[in-house]
Amino acid sequence: MNHFFKVKSLEEVMALTEKFFPVETEKIPVSNAFSRVLAQDMIAKKDMPGFMRATMDGYAVAASSTFGASESSPAWLDIAGTVLMGDIPKFAIAQGQAAKISTGGMLPKGADSVVMVEHAELIDELSVEIYKSVAPLQHVIDKSEDFSEKDIVLSRGTFIRPQEQGLAAGLGFTHIETFKTPKIGIISTGDEIIPIEEEPVPGKIRDINSYTLSGFINEAHAIPVRYGIIKDEPNAIKKAIEKALKETDMVLISGGSSVGTRDFTIEVLSSLPDTEILVHGMSISPGKPTILAKAGKKPVWGLPGQVVSAMVVLKIVVIPFLNRLKGLGHLDRTISVPAKLTRNVPSAQGRRDFVRVKLTKKENLVLAKPVLGKSGLIRTMIHADGLLEIGEHVEGLEKDTMVNIILL
Amino acid sequence: MNHFFKVKSLEEVMALTEKFFPVETEKIPVSNAFSRVLAQDMIAKKDMPGFMRATMDGYAVAASSTFGASESSPAWLDIAGTVLMGDIPKFAIAQGQAAKISTGGMLPKGADSVVMVEHAELIDELSVEIYKSVAPLQHVIDKSEDFSEKDIVLSRGTFIRPQEQGLAAGLGFTHIETFKTPKIGIISTGDEIIPIEEEPVPGKIRDINSYTLSGFINEAHAIPVRYGIIKDEPNAIKKAIEKALKETDMVLISGGSSVGTRDFTIEVLSSLPDTEILVHGMSISPGKPTILAKAGKKPVWGLPGQVVSAMVVLKIVVIPFLNRLKGLGHLDRTISVPAKLTRNVPSAQGRRDFVRVKLTKKENLVLAKPVLGKSGLIRTMIHADGLLEIGEHVEGLEKDTMVNIILL
Repeated sequence: MNHFFKVKSLEEVMALTEKFFPVETEKIPVSNAFSRVLAQDMIAKKDMPGFMRATMDGYAVAASSTFGASESSPAWLDIAGTVLMGDIPKFAIAQGQAAKISTGGMLPKGADSVVMVEHAELIDELSVEIYKSVAPLQHVIDKSEDFSEKDIVLSRGTFIRPQEQGLAAGLGFTHIETFKTPKIGIISTGDEIIPIEEEPVPGKIRDINSYTLSGFINEAHAIPVRYGIIKDEPNAIKKAIEKALKETDMVLISGGSSVGTRDFTIEVLSSLPDTEILVHGMSISPGKPTILAKAGKKPVWGLPGQVVSAMVVLKIVVIPFLNRLKGLGHLDRTISVPAKLTRNVPSAQGRRDFVRVKLTKKENLVLAKPVLGKSGLIRTMIHADGLLEIGEHVEGLEKDTMVNIILL
Repeated sequence: MNHFFKVKSLEEVMALTEKFFPVETEKIPVSNAFSRVLAQDMIAKKDMPGFMRATMDGYAVAASSTFGASESSPAWLDIAGTVLMGDIPKFAIAQGQAAKISTGGMLPKGADSVVMVEHAELIDELSVEIYKSVAPLQHVIDKSEDFSEKDIVLSRGTFIRPQEQGLAAGLGFTHIETFKTPKIGIISTGDEIIPIEEEPVPGKIRDINSYTLSGFINEAHAIPVRYGIIKDEPNAIKKAIEKALKETDMVLISGGSSVGTRDFTIEVLSSLPDTEILVHGMSISPGKPTILAKAGKKPVWGLPGQVVSAMVVLKIVVIPFLNRLKGLGHLDRTISVPAKLTRNVPSAQGRRDFVRVKLTKKENLVLAKPVLGKSGLIRTMIHADGLLEIGEHVEGLEKDTMVNIILL
C-alpha cells in the first residue's frame, strides 16, 4: 500500500484544500456572530449614517458664515436654536446663524459644518462669537460618508470580527447568513493510551492528544467532539471512524505511532466506501507520518501519535482545511512575527522543519530561542511561544538571522 | 465636578488595574479548560512519562552492545522478544541482545536506547544486524524527562492554551481550579440611538456599540451581557447601572457622547454607594472622554459614544482590566508586529495617538498604510488590521519609519 504513495510537500498538501467545500449555511442572530464566517455578501440598504451628523460638541453653521473668523476678528452669529439629540431640527440655519449641537446630533438645514465649542464663546442666549473658521463638512459626518446605499460592505467568506459584527448591526441586519460551525471528530488510538481518569501502570500513558487537539479546534472557533480511545484493532477503528464521519464534518485520528497502527489506519480508510487516500506521508518535521483521506466529501486525518507532532500538524496543516470547511476566504490565519535567532539551528534538506521557539523581548527586538527537547515531550510545547519554519532547501540557520515565527 | 479631575495618561490608568482583583474560582472539567485561566499551581503527582519509552520504531538495546557498529562492520544481536504496546515487557535485555519495539513502547529492563529500524536488518526471527551505534538514551524518552514528580508544571495565572490543556489531562487532572469567566454588562446610552431592528428616521442611528463591544468581550473569552439602550436620563441610567452591577463583574456604558450625558454618567456614578471616580478623561486619541469608576469592587466604564473611539478604548484600555478580573498573570495580551509606514503620520504632542492602519505584505516586509477617515466612521475599523501607537512626546512619524502595529 505504502509504495503507491510519494511523500508530499506542504504546498502539495495545501493545494488539496480545493478538493473540499464549505459546510452548510444558517441564519443566526447578529448578536452571536462573532467568530463566524459570512456566507452572503452584505449590501447597505440605506446610506449610513443617513443624515449629516456632528462629530464634535459645538455650533452647526454654514461654513461660509465663519470665513475669515479669528481670535482677533471673531465672527458674530445669531443662535437660531438648539438641536436635540435624536431629533430632526425643526428650524433651518441662514447665513450668519448658528445652532447649538452635540456630538451625534443632526445638522439643521442650511448648516454644513460644526464649530467646536472650544473655538466659540456664547455671548448671551441669542449670540455666539466664533474664533476659528471651518471648512464645509468639517467636524461632521456626511449622509453617506460611512457607506452608500447598495455598497457591498462585507463579502462572503469574511471572518466576523467585533467591527464586522457592529457594522452588520448598524446596517439593520438582525440576522445574517453564516456558515455553520464545523464539528470535528477526535479519535485517539493506541493500546498504550488510557483515559485520563485512570492511574497509568508502567507501559501506559494518559490520553493527551484528545485534549490538545480539542483545544486547537476550540481556538479555531469550531466544535471538538471526542470519541475516546480506540484499541489498535482494525474493526474497532473502522467503527469509530464511521460513527465520527456520520456525526461530524472532519475526523482526526491521532496515534497509530507504531508502524502497525499506521497500516491499520490506511487499511481501514481504504476499505471505506467512496474514500480516496490523498496523502500518505509529508515532507515536514515533525509530522512526517500524516495521512489524509477524502471519505465522501469529508477530510479524515491520520495524525502522528507523538504529542508535539500531532499539535504541529494540526496547527500548520489541518487548520487550513478546517478554515476551508468554515467557508473562510483566506485559509491561513496564522500570525507571524519577525524575531532574531539566539543560536544556530540545524535542519535537514528536503523537508520543512518546524522548530519550537521561546520568544522574549529585548529593547525593540524579539529574540527567538529554540526550545530543546524531543518531539515526544509536551514540556517543549509548554515552553514554546511559536514555531520557526525552515524551508526544504535550507541546511540550517545561523545565530542572529532574522526569521519569521508563527505564533502558537 | 469636572474640575477635580486631571486627564490621566495611559500608564496612570494601567496602574489602576491593581485596584481590582480576580473574580472567584471554580473547578471545571479539563475538557472545557481551553481559554480559561489557572487558579492553582499545578504540580506533577508522578514522573512523566513514568517509564522509559521508545521514540522510534526499531530495536531496544543496551547502547554498549552497538558500540563500533557500522555498515561495514555491523553488530549481530539476538532477539530476546517483542515489546507489545502498552505492556510491561516480561523479559530483560542482556548484553548482545535486542527487543523489537514500536514508538511509544516501554523499554525492557537492561535496555537504555533504541536503534531505528532503518539502521538494522532482521536476519531471521532470532537475530538482527545493527549498522549504526547508538548512545545511551538515544531515541528514548527517559522516565522523568517530560516532568519529575513534584515539579510545578504550570502556575496560577496561566492562560490555558491547547498544550496546557493537554498537559493537565496527561498529568491526570480531570478537573482543574480556574477563575470563573467574567460577565461584562454593556449599556448603550443616547437619545439618538435606536434598537437595530428599527428603521432609523433622520437624526437616529442604530445601536452599533453594543455589538462591537460584545464582540471584543467574546474575543477576550468573557461573557457579554447586553442591557439595551437607555435614554439620556439620570434615573434611567442609574437603574441600568445598578442592575448591571448586581448581575455582572464589570460594566461598560457607551455613549454619552454629548457633554450633557457625560455629566449624567459622572453624576450617576458619584451618587452610587461606595463608589470612587478613578478616571475622568485620558490623554489618548481617540478615547479622551473615558470615565472609570470603582463601584464596590467592580470597574464601571464610561466609554465614548463614537464607534471607533469606543472600540479603541475597549481594546487598549479596558481589556487589561478584564484580564485582571480573569486572573491572568500578564495583563497585556495584544500582539504587535513590526511594519513599515507608507506615509507620514501627523500626531499631536501630549497625547497618545492610536492610528488605524491596513497591513499588506510586500516581499519580506509588512507595510502599514494609515486608514483615512473620521473616528465616527466604522468603515475605518472594517478596513483596518491594526493600530499604530504614537507616543506623547512624538510629533508625528515619517514615511518609511519602522513601527509596531497592535493587531486588531
